[in-house]
Amino acid sequence: MGVRRRGAATYAISGVYIQSTAAVVGPKEGQGPFGNAFDRVWADEGTRYPSFEKAEQGLLQEAYEIALKKRGYEWHDIQLVIGGDLLDQVISTNFVARSHQRPLAGIFSACATFAEGMGLGALLVGAADVATVMVSSVSHHATAERQFRFPLELGYQRTPTAAWTATAAGVAILGQTPTPLAVEAVTLGRVVDFGGKDPNDMGSAMAPAAYDTIMQHLQDMGQRLTDFDAIYTGDLGHFGLRMLQAYGEQLGTPFGSELHDCGRELYDQKSQDTHNGGSGPGCSASVFAGPLVGKLTSGEWTRLMLVATGALYSPTTYQQGETIPCIAHAIQISRRGIHA
Amino acid sequence: MGVRRRGAATYAISGVYIQSTAAVVGPKEGQGPFGNAFDRVWADEGTRYPSFEKAEQGLLQEAYEIALKKRGYEWHDIQLVIGGDLLDQVISTNFVARSHQRPLAGIFSACATFAEGMGLGALLVGAADVATVMVSSVSHHATAERQFRFPLELGYQRTPTAAWTATAAGVAILGQTPTPLAVEAVTLGRVVDFGGKDPNDMGSAMAPAAYDTIMQHLQDMGQRLTDFDAIYTGDLGHFGLRMLQAYGEQLGTPFGSELHDCGRELYDQKSQDTHNGGSGPGCSASVFAGPLVGKLTSGEWTRLMLVATGALYSPTTYQQGETIPCIAHAIQISRRGIHA
Repeated sequence: MGVRRRGAATYAISGVYIQSTAAVVGPKEGQGPFGNAFDRVWADEGTRYPSFEKAEQGLLQEAYEIALKKRGYEWHDIQLVIGGDLLDQVISTNFVARSHQRPLAGIFSACATFAEGMGLGALLVGAADVATVMVSSVSHHATAERQFRFPLELGYQRTPTAAWTATAAGVAILGQTPTPLAVEAVTLGRVVDFGGKDPNDMGSAMAPAAYDTIMQHLQDMGQRLTDFDAIYTGDLGHFGLRMLQAYGEQLGTPFGSELHDCGRELYDQKSQDTHNGGSGPGCSASVFAGPLVGKLTSGEWTRLMLVATGALYSPTTYQQGETIPCIAHAIQISRRGIHA
Repeated sequence: MGVRRRGAATYAISGVYIQSTAAVVGPKEGQGPFGNAFDRVWADEGTRYPSFEKAEQGLLQEAYEIALKKRGYEWHDIQLVIGGDLLDQVISTNFVARSHQRPLAGIFSACATFAEGMGLGALLVGAADVATVMVSSVSHHATAERQFRFPLELGYQRTPTAAWTATAAGVAILGQTPTPLAVEAVTLGRVVDFGGKDPNDMGSAMAPAAYDTIMQHLQDMGQRLTDFDAIYTGDLGHFGLRMLQAYGEQLGTPFGSELHDCGRELYDQKSQDTHNGGSGPGCSASVFAGPLVGKLTSGEWTRLMLVATGALYSPTTYQQGETIPCIAHAIQISRRGIHA
């Protein structure tokens, strides 16, 4: 068990294992290519709740409960919850904390929130005697649309580069008990702002941050792209992923078939009308907690890098004409023998 | 150097020291009782900036620069910035991160944000090979008023229990180089919600959370109230502090002269018309980074507990009739010989 700083922003970690994960998603996400890989798919967007904000809390609550149950844990086995969401003042995470009553560290880095939580959680479990940490992130299409864009009832025309905020919660329990899934390293990203101003094209705005963090991680860890079976960025979507691939080509590190994007693959582009793809803190969280962990567990992959990306703007900064600061945090997970 | 879990939510820490602090405040805060103890007092609320949001970023930027300069550090000496603020999507902290370019972990727990950051920072510095961490929090009266309440131009009547969001930034650099100020312990709080619904009486809503965290800290550390020269809650203000004192009386742990509140003492109640007192993430951050650290450094105090409190609601949850979940995080700081 331990943590060692490697280079500028990366920490090599030993003795930290994923104890359990869970993903609960909405109907649209359930109809997408990953549909079978989530723990639970809601039949609707949560109309049984009095508000979509309460529905978002319900998603998170269910994901927590499933993750605990899969591992045979009770809440008192968790020493710390590290979580966040997209809503103003992080209300989904904070309100659900009324019921679980565990120490809470609220975090925010937009759609990179889950990876930030996994990074901080792994550092704490790996070194700081915080034995077991619950990491979480959640988003809901309807709450995000009305907070960041327009009420759904308006039925406005979405641009081709616009992302579709996922109705999804993803959680992971990190602990010191050996399991096949080890958190091997984390890179906490810096803010990168290339001047993008369009909140309807966040993929392009975030691609430079993803590139920066991936290269930082490889450099600090002495790795190459091909050391990974898969590198999944967060919510770059179709446009952002192409931009990231172009950066790689132009800057001498061309990506290969290992490069994927959670948002791009969450929906079927042709049949689901989601334009650039999925986004929201729940997107990379649920894709990781469901399908990606599944590929590692099944043995299809040995090593994964999740590079969740976040656009750190607000409606206020957009209205004031500001550019969009972006960030990406990376975690490296490997499948290994239980006693490795 | 190390971290040991003590009880349910508290960690005893060794080898973590405050390297530097800085507080930059607005004119009203400068005219208050602590006026001389801040590093810089602005002559106005930042009218040289194109918006109050930019002014809030300016406060934070200046506090960062002063803290670095006092210690002879450059930004590259900082391995990680942990910070947050009150604005939607934590924009003040995230936008200032464009200039410093250090790895960033954005956090949010409303007015308890600074203590959450100090807690996480101390855990990381104490055990996880993250050698030097910058912790920060900031708020601005004008940005908070228009986000949470009404535009200032409306000139509305404030209720007697309403708090005055401070125009203030407070930062602290944590590191492993021994200094006279050691971070000895942290308690990360849980959400406590006693059913308060009035965002104009957050002191009363937050008092139970403050009580819960103080008692948890004392129990886990095997301490008594009198082991502290001072216990400073965050933003309970006049009403909240009286409620906390009443809890202590009724529940068998009566507080004595060691109990204070940052928000209560930031302004002069008689002359400054701030009703319940100061609030906002910058309140406890600046009071800690300026006057409280001053009392420790001068030798007037040997041991301090800072218990920053946060009301985790949003305008949306208020409008939906929800109660206000509250939280409090505690840090214990001691003055000791450099080679202790």
